[in-house]
Formats: sequence, C-alpha cells, structure tokens
Amino acid sequence: MNDTYDISIFPVKLEIQVRSYEVDFQNVVNNAVYFNYFELARIDYRKKMGYSLNPNGTFSDGLLFFVAHNECDYFSPAYLDNELIIYTRIDYIKNSSLNFEHLIFNKTTNQFIAKGSGVIVNVDPITLNPTPIPDKMIKEIKSFDKTVKVFR
Amino acid sequence: MNDTYDISIFPVKLEIQVRSYEVDFQNVVNNAVYFNYFELARIDYRKKMGYSLNPNGTFSDGLLFFVAHNECDYFSPAYLDNELIIYTRIDYIKNSSLNFEHLIFNKTTNQFIAKGSGVIVNVDPITLNPTPIPDKMIKEIKSFDKTVKVFR
Amino acid sequence: MNDTYDISIFPVKLEIQVRSYEVDFQNVVNNAVYFNYFELARIDYRKKMGYSLNPNGTFSDGLLFFVAHNECDYFSPAYLDNELIIYTRIDYIKNSSLNFEHLIFNKTTNQFIAKGSGVIVNVDPITLNPTPIPDKMIKEIKSFDKTVKVFR
Amino acid sequence: MNDTYDISIFPVKLEIQVRSYEVDFQNVVNNAVYFNYFELARIDYRKKMGYSLNPNGTFSDGLLFFVAHNECDYFSPAYLDNELIIYTRIDYIKNSSLNFEHLIFNKTTNQFIAKGSGVIVNVDPITLNPTPIPDKMIKEIKSFDKTVKVFR
Repeated sequence: MNDTYDISIFPVKLEIQVRSYEVDFQNVVNNAVYFNYFELARIDYRKKMGYSLNPNGTFSDGLLFFVAHNECDYFSPAYLDNELIIYTRIDYIKNSSLNFEHLIFNKTTNQFIAKGSGVIVNVDPITLNPTPIPDKMIKEIKSFDKTVKVFR
Repeated sequence: MNDTYDISIFPVKLEIQVRSYEVDFQNVVNNAVYFNYFELARIDYRKKMGYSLNPNGTFSDGLLFFVAHNECDYFSPAYLDNELIIYTRIDYIKNSSLNFEHLIFNKTTNQFIAKGSGVIVNVDPITLNPTPIPDKMIKEIKSFDKTVKVFR
Repeated sequence: MNDTYDISIFPVKLEIQVRSYEVDFQNVVNNAVYFNYFELARIDYRKKMGYSLNPNGTFSDGLLFFVAHNECDYFSPAYLDNELIIYTRIDYIKNSSLNFEHLIFNKTTNQFIAKGSGVIVNVDPITLNPTPIPDKMIKEIKSFDKTVKVFR
Repeated sequence: MNDTYDISIFPVKLEIQVRSYEVDFQNVVNNAVYFNYFELARIDYRKKMGYSLNPNGTFSDGLLFFVAHNECDYFSPAYLDNELIIYTRIDYIKNSSLNFEHLIFNKTTNQFIAKGSGVIVNVDPITLNPTPIPDKMIKEIKSFDKTVKVFR
C-alpha cells in the first residue's frame, strides 16, 4: 500500500502506540479514536514548523483553529499495542481554511490502516469568526510541504 | 435549520447531554466525540428496532458490524452540559453495507450543530469478511425507515 | 449487597448505561471510566440541589471545585450496555473540602459493582486557592443530605 | 518535591505529553485521565521486564490482571501539552495481588503533580478468579524493583 500512496510527499510523520483504553468492545481501536490521532498529527505538524500550543488552545503565534470537517476511511483494524505511523500533509489552502490529509500504517506489518482528512478553519481568537490564513503562514507551509496547493 | 432539513424522515431521535470530560482544550465538545455520539445513535437505532448488544459486540440477532467510513461537518460548537438531539436515518443500503445519516441540534436553542454520516459493513463474525445484509434486516429497515434506498 | 450498604441515606441516584467506547481491551468498563461516572454523579448532585454548570466550569452560584483525591474499589466488572445505578452522598464537609461517597450497582442484576470516594475542594475562581465552603452551601447540603457530618 | 520522594527507588520512568482531548472543561487534565496514565505506566513496567501485551488483554507469559483498587492525590494541575514524567514501582506483593505506586512530575518545571496507587490482581484467564502470583514473577520483580516487599 506504500506503493499506492506516495508517502514521500508527506512532510510530517508521527509515531504512536495504541493505548489500552483506546480499544473498544470489538477489540479494535474505536473508530472515533482515529480523529484523536488526526488531531495529534495536526498539532504535531505545526510543532514541526516551530510553533507550540498555549494552554488556552491558541498556538504560539496567536492563531486559533477550529475543525470544520472530518472524515476517515477504515481499511484494516488496529489492535492493542500496535505501533502506528501517521503521515500528514496539507493538500490545499483556501482563503481561511486548510485541508489536511492523513495516512495511517501499521509500523510493524506496513499494513494500510486508514486514510483521513480534515478541514481546519483559522478563526479570530476574539470573535471566533473565520479569518484569512496569514500570508506568513502560507509561505512557511509552501516551503515545508512542497506539494500544497493554494487556492486564493 | 430545522426548516432546511426534513427531520420528519429521521425515525430515530436520541437525546444526550454533553459530559464534562467531552469538552476539550478549546472549551467545546472535542471533534472526535461527535463520532462517539454517532456510534451511540447507530446502536440506539438498532435497539429501537428491537435488538440489543451482546457483551462480545454482536447484536442479539448475531450480526456484527464494522465501521468503514465516517464523516462529520461541524456548523456550531457544542458546550459543556448542552442538551443535544441526534436524528438518525439510514440513507441507503447496498449489498453488505448501510449508510447512516445523522443531524445534531441543540435541544434548547434549536441551533444546528453538526451533520454526519457513516458507512457500516455487515461482517461475518468468524471470518470478519463483508457479507450480504440479510433480507430480513432490509425488510425491517424499509418498514421502520420509510425513505431508505436499497441498491442491490 | 444492597443489604450491606444502607442506600436509603444516599440522596442522589443517577442511572447511566455503559457506552460502547467505555469498554476496553479486557471487554469490561475501563477502570478509569468509573471516575468519569463519579464526576457525572457529583455534577448531578449539585444539579439536584438546583445549580447548573456554566460553560467555564463554575456552577451557577459562581462556585468552582477542584478534585483533590479520588479512589475506587472494584468488586465486579461492568460490561457493554449494562445499566448502572450510582448512589451518591456527601460523607463529610471540612473547612474548604467535601468528601463524596459513591456506590455503583448493576440495575438489572442488583450486583454490587464498585465503591468510590472523592475529595472536592472549593477554590477561589480567580486565585484558584482553597477557600471555605460558604455557610449557605453547608446549610443546603445538611437539609438535602441528612447524614452529612460537618467538621469545622 | 523530588527531595521529598526518593525517586531513585522507582525502576520505571515513563514520559508522556498531555494530549489536546485529555484537557477538560476546567482547562486542566481531567481527573480520570490520571488513571489512564497509571494504566500505561503499569503496562510499561511489565514491558520493561520483557513482556508484551496480547490483543486479548493477557501478557505474553499468559498472565491476566484486573484492577481491584485505584487512588490518586492531586497536588498541582497539568495543562495542555505539558510533558510529564511518571515514576512507577511496586510497593508490595501479596498472595495474588500487587500494589503499584506512581508519582507524576512536570518534566519542565519539576513540579509535583500527583501521587497514585493501584492494586492489581492476578486472575485465572479462564475462570477470572484470583490466583497466586507465580514465583517466577515475584523473583523477577525482586530483581528489577529492589525495594519491593513480599507478604506471603
């Protein structure tokens, strides 16, 4: 499956291990937990660009993001203690939103586990209304994530 | 927003209240929690058709379902203690899968919160391979959920 | 076990049903989830006394509480979809803290599931330092929870 | 606080970072999440002794453990993204149970966050009844965790 997706275009690679309480009544990682993983991957993406999270949920450059859309296709279950690799890239940037793309593989077997995407909106920290992504951020992403498409 | 969606075609209505630990670092219900709510709604749908869950994850008629796809569009945040209504219907049935559709509203303000859908696959409890939805189940759904489309 | 504990002295009774994602890798309700249940029960206790939660975590009378101690003894596992009853009382009140006591039973079988307690501290919403429980609150608790002991 | 507790007697040190969805309505790590951390620490303890977890919840030596008691004292809140260190030791071993002790510190500030303990019971994987801890395991723990007390 690594042959199907070109993982070389994903700038961020996060490794996590399935935790005991993330496995559900069907003995597999609960379907909702993948969205926790995607959130960790998106935060990790920004950290690898040099920003950190403030306790109030904004990043160190003052930006605040809300999730507008989430989706996930599940290909193979993940089990207790599995080591997973999450590859993350930004597919495109629009005026005030970013579209993240995630691929999850089993680190040990290389099996393809899931594919997800999420639309994140830059909001004004006071009004919470959508506001344009700053040019500085777009420039930094284009340098960090070479295949990103900018629609604006 | 209740004027936009015809909620009268949704046979299942589940009321839940936002729990303290479902609110996250941004003081809103975490985006992943909506998929917990959708799962509760799907289980509730089958319960309202007369089936219960066994401790091993199968239903009382022996059927086992895996989630193949999940998605959610977020329109307004939900906050601590908010009372929410989740409307659920099955949009269509294919050979071995069902497509659930969910709408979430704030019960107090009637504000539209989120729209989601999920594809659930009927799997053989032993092999875990996809297997056709039994005719009996399709017949029961058509009687319970009048606008369902059957593609097979 | 209902014969062992005098549940008649517990003023608050909360019914919950075990959710699919609360069951863990051992097919039982994860041990940490009981503390979620206790938190729901403590919030329910205050609601039944007429107070609600604000989105910022304070109650409608402006009080803010932090958890200082938690404990749980597990007697029998709880399983997927089990209906549980949580009985809650306040055992004692000290200067700035309250000691809650919780008993959990399986609603269907009456089996005793767990016993827990939690020390909650009233803190100043600005400084977050412990501050005395207001006399008004103590008076209300004594009227609502007849066997509470007040040490001050 | 590192001066108060002798952390040199704790054989297992696990580092974790607070995740976005572990922070609750009060902007601190939810009180129940500490028990998730303790569970991760206990599993890590056994891994560092050379055992792994099977998908069914038993360890690679076939042993199965249930939690009989949990407790936690909270000293300072942990916040979004904080890096935490969890020190873990076994305080004592009885016939069929072990008593784990955990200390949590903020890795950056060295602030003492919480102290916990948990009683874990060795159960027969078939009957789920308590069964004596095997001598082999006790011998291995005594070699790994020098200050453990054995009461049997």
